[in-house]
Amino acid sequence: MQTDSLHRDLAPLFQPDAVVVVGASNDRNKWGYSTFKSLLDHFEGELHPVNLHAPEILGRKAYSRVIDVPGAVDLAVIVIPPEGVAGVMEDCVSKGVRAAVIITAGFAEVGPKGKALQDEVVRVARKGGIRLVGPNCMGMWSAARNLTAFMFPMRITDGPLALISQGGNIGGALVADATARGVGFRHYVSCGCTADIQIEDYIEYMGEDETVKVIMVYIEGLGDGNRFVRKVSRVTRKKPVVALKPGKTDAAARAISSHSGALSGQDALYEAAFRRAGVLRVDSSTELLDVAIGLLTQPLPAGRRVVITTPGGSYGVMCAEACALRGLEVIPLPERAMAAFNAMFPERWSHGNPVDPAGDRDFVQYLKAPEIVLQCPEVDALIFMGFGTFSGISSVFAGGKGGPGLRRWVGRLADRKEMAGAMLEALDSGDPDGIRKVIRPVVEWIFAQMMPGRAKGTEDFMDSVTEALTDPQMLKSSLYDHLKAFFRAVVTGDDSGLEAVRLFDLMDPVPGAIVRRLTKKYQKPVITTTFTEGNTRLSEAGHFPYPNSDRASNVLAKLLEYREYLDGAGVRV
Amino acid sequence: MQTDSLHRDLAPLFQPDAVVVVGASNDRNKWGYSTFKSLLDHFEGELHPVNLHAPEILGRKAYSRVIDVPGAVDLAVIVIPPEGVAGVMEDCVSKGVRAAVIITAGFAEVGPKGKALQDEVVRVARKGGIRLVGPNCMGMWSAARNLTAFMFPMRITDGPLALISQGGNIGGALVADATARGVGFRHYVSCGCTADIQIEDYIEYMGEDETVKVIMVYIEGLGDGNRFVRKVSRVTRKKPVVALKPGKTDAAARAISSHSGALSGQDALYEAAFRRAGVLRVDSSTELLDVAIGLLTQPLPAGRRVVITTPGGSYGVMCAEACALRGLEVIPLPERAMAAFNAMFPERWSHGNPVDPAGDRDFVQYLKAPEIVLQCPEVDALIFMGFGTFSGISSVFAGGKGGPGLRRWVGRLADRKEMAGAMLEALDSGDPDGIRKVIRPVVEWIFAQMMPGRAKGTEDFMDSVTEALTDPQMLKSSLYDHLKAFFRAVVTGDDSGLEAVRLFDLMDPVPGAIVRRLTKKYQKPVITTTFTEGNTRLSEAGHFPYPNSDRASNVLAKLLEYREYLDGAGVRV
Repeated sequence: MQTDSLHRDLAPLFQPDAVVVVGASNDRNKWGYSTFKSLLDHFEGELHPVNLHAPEILGRKAYSRVIDVPGAVDLAVIVIPPEGVAGVMEDCVSKGVRAAVIITAGFAEVGPKGKALQDEVVRVARKGGIRLVGPNCMGMWSAARNLTAFMFPMRITDGPLALISQGGNIGGALVADATARGVGFRHYVSCGCTADIQIEDYIEYMGEDETVKVIMVYIEGLGDGNRFVRKVSRVTRKKPVVALKPGKTDAAARAISSHSGALSGQDALYEAAFRRAGVLRVDSSTELLDVAIGLLTQPLPAGRRVVITTPGGSYGVMCAEACALRGLEVIPLPERAMAAFNAMFPERWSHGNPVDPAGDRDFVQYLKAPEIVLQCPEVDALIFMGFGTFSGISSVFAGGKGGPGLRRWVGRLADRKEMAGAMLEALDSGDPDGIRKVIRPVVEWIFAQMMPGRAKGTEDFMDSVTEALTDPQMLKSSLYDHLKAFFRAVVTGDDSGLEAVRLFDLMDPVPGAIVRRLTKKYQKPVITTTFTEGNTRLSEAGHFPYPNSDRASNVLAKLLEYREYLDGAGVRV
Repeated sequence: MQTDSLHRDLAPLFQPDAVVVVGASNDRNKWGYSTFKSLLDHFEGELHPVNLHAPEILGRKAYSRVIDVPGAVDLAVIVIPPEGVAGVMEDCVSKGVRAAVIITAGFAEVGPKGKALQDEVVRVARKGGIRLVGPNCMGMWSAARNLTAFMFPMRITDGPLALISQGGNIGGALVADATARGVGFRHYVSCGCTADIQIEDYIEYMGEDETVKVIMVYIEGLGDGNRFVRKVSRVTRKKPVVALKPGKTDAAARAISSHSGALSGQDALYEAAFRRAGVLRVDSSTELLDVAIGLLTQPLPAGRRVVITTPGGSYGVMCAEACALRGLEVIPLPERAMAAFNAMFPERWSHGNPVDPAGDRDFVQYLKAPEIVLQCPEVDALIFMGFGTFSGISSVFAGGKGGPGLRRWVGRLADRKEMAGAMLEALDSGDPDGIRKVIRPVVEWIFAQMMPGRAKGTEDFMDSVTEALTDPQMLKSSLYDHLKAFFRAVVTGDDSGLEAVRLFDLMDPVPGAIVRRLTKKYQKPVITTTFTEGNTRLSEAGHFPYPNSDRASNVLAKLLEYREYLDGAGVRV
């Protein structure tokens, strides 16, 4: 029943049909300008500006009071000085508004006077059954109606994450960073002073939303820790909740009190609450995103036994250290894997875990290593270093040039137009079997180009790469756009534009596709790293490579922590 | 004397006139191909391939033995199987070669048999006074002759860093990452098994090189800890040495032994040695670069008292926590600063440290805050959040569009061609006084564009920005190229190309210039952060913004650690 009423309460907030902006303004120096503009540009429902004086805001007819707006209003976004908010709320009650986002600051966070104002606003809202976001927040996003109720224009896309943040700036940065990493949000709420709806209420709501896969939270302070544990522990049995919670130091506790007005309290109490609720705690916004993306893209490990494969010894050393420091067990290499690697690597290979071919130039062998490791029952997870992307490799080893452009091969195939035409036809058909037949020789050809004369004895590997590349998700990837453009160029002789497509770009999603196939087949996490510190994007295969072993091993440790929580709670994974 | 002889020994390595590559090859599958190619493309001295069979390598006449090469040879780069290296070394002795880089692996790191081979190579080299880099390394770089003696092509530029790495892959990644951050190297040595020249020898040599400002080291194990402390402690009195040293865990110690063959030993011994030698220890390659760049660009703090300015409360909370966790003191805000901020920020500002204007839209006030803080004698250092770059701001708040293109203003100034012509003339003249007069109104105009109607009462601030922008380093920056292009467009009416220059791009180096002026004027560190997690580049002003408060506060803590070491060693800073 709780949940039904919560859903009824919060639906107008996350799926409003009609929205008003109170304090909408034509003055570019005011938040009321950027807030209204932001909704005007994106919101897909009815939208009205409310302004005491202006007849029109950004070309839309404005109303001096909420009660003057024609038709029903679900949601009011409020951007006026704090003294006026209670009065506006009275109007909202009269109008039958269901929910309000109070962006205005100057309430509980500034002291007793502000707290009194805030209490009055809440009193009026409760009277009319209006649920409140904020005050002192930056606004919210819901993908359902492209609802961008923000103080400023933000780039945000639909996706499987949800974020609730008690800090608007950190929330905004997280959204920007996630977007740069290629991951989107179903909902984002900057919840500010949480005068009404509490963090655990939002989490409960997101828990019920099937489109949300991972819930992220930035918390400065909770009102009622027991209520949080009670509500959130029901959610974490179904989907993961990851929390960033500063306040381990007095300096942070003081800063929190002047920011959100929250009492951050003793950190040990939070630590205990998170443990009981099954919330994964992280220490930075980068870690928050790392772990959320890991949870989105990887199965949970059954245990802590990890094998590392590395194209370089020093990487392996750093990764072994990073794993051991986080309680992961860098196990002795299983005999079966040892035998397989003895047969395929040069004699100088590391003969242990980390698995290091020690400068073997035949990197096809290295790409075969993961499956050999995952087949061993002694192994719970794999960290596969260096080959997270091909463009990452090129940035280090090829001076960032990304290999030769595709055009150079068009001319060489000029006498094989018929074959190219047949391939193009198969690709265009969309039939997976036909595409598989076409892709197999292309895979061999690409590996032969990158590793001349070395692609022998790799029939099984080429089969598995072909399988990975013809997964339904990969069939929609840019790899096929590039290949179609290439074969079309061979057929027509018009190769313009192909120089810009580098061999390494073409190959970019391939490691991700290989890894996704392995995680599905063996149901074990395979965490990859790149060579350099720059962040990457979620690949078209649905795989995310981390820039270093600290971050990769940390994600693995958090996946294990969640698995152990679920096991302890008796939830079958 | 030690130093003189070291210099005499290592000069042929770092400044060779003539180099041979033994094992140079035309076979693209061999390291001898990419090693020779890498030198052929870049090295500015004499270069000869040595190959037992081929008459020519990549178009250069090849010699079957080193003794057949005409003229003197300073440096031999060796890329042949391990069994042949001792024989080649005999030839090098006969030829009078002074130094060798042995890329070949399969020596001490693979066990007793390899160790015996290595001992023989060293014995022969010692006999002829040849100093050795490696074996089992990736090669080396010296800017002096554009010496790119690497296994593979690497993008590397001249600069004030030096790097000595016992791991070639980590070394290569560090070089790539530093290059991406806009910082270059005077020398980089992948030192491998350090059979002859020890890490402390390289450090001693870099210590004497005036062009090297900061020395970075990746260490797996040292041969003689006391020798390291003795030699390196002399260097750290003059310039900083930053070390990454894994081996805190058994898993890493095992990996080290199979990688470089080093005995990593008890971590506590390393910790003590680094402390005695004044070496700053870090835990990741990202931290290694962060700290090195901090040391390059910032003065050392006199103490641990820090003030944080933040454009958002949650950022301030995270930063206060990050500082406190690292032993920095987030002090109560000095009264003088409190009074100044009371006068300039809205009433809801944080009234403390972190200084948070709490959503003040007038960001000129925020940009004025750093100088007010630095003027307080109670403050040792400042962390200035969010405004590390302007393009960073635009990526979050303007949806990555970077503000309007410059072209839009060209037409509006169409009737002021004379003024634009005069401005262009002043800029072209290169005379700092003339440029200062031109820049002052431009600064006002830009701030007025970005903050319409709010640039009042900021005379002093505009003066200081003008001063910062006319610093000799800034006069060479792209800001002036953009401004000249703009005024030229006003004069000629041809505004093509200007749309691509966004207002935020134009402004990008401005925060860095402001900060550089402040660090020079007050001789206190000012560490800036951006809004998002992407790495930035060293700005044209010589300033580097960090992506988050963890990394910013960590750099500050390391600067303090170095200052405390120097104070303890009685070195005047």
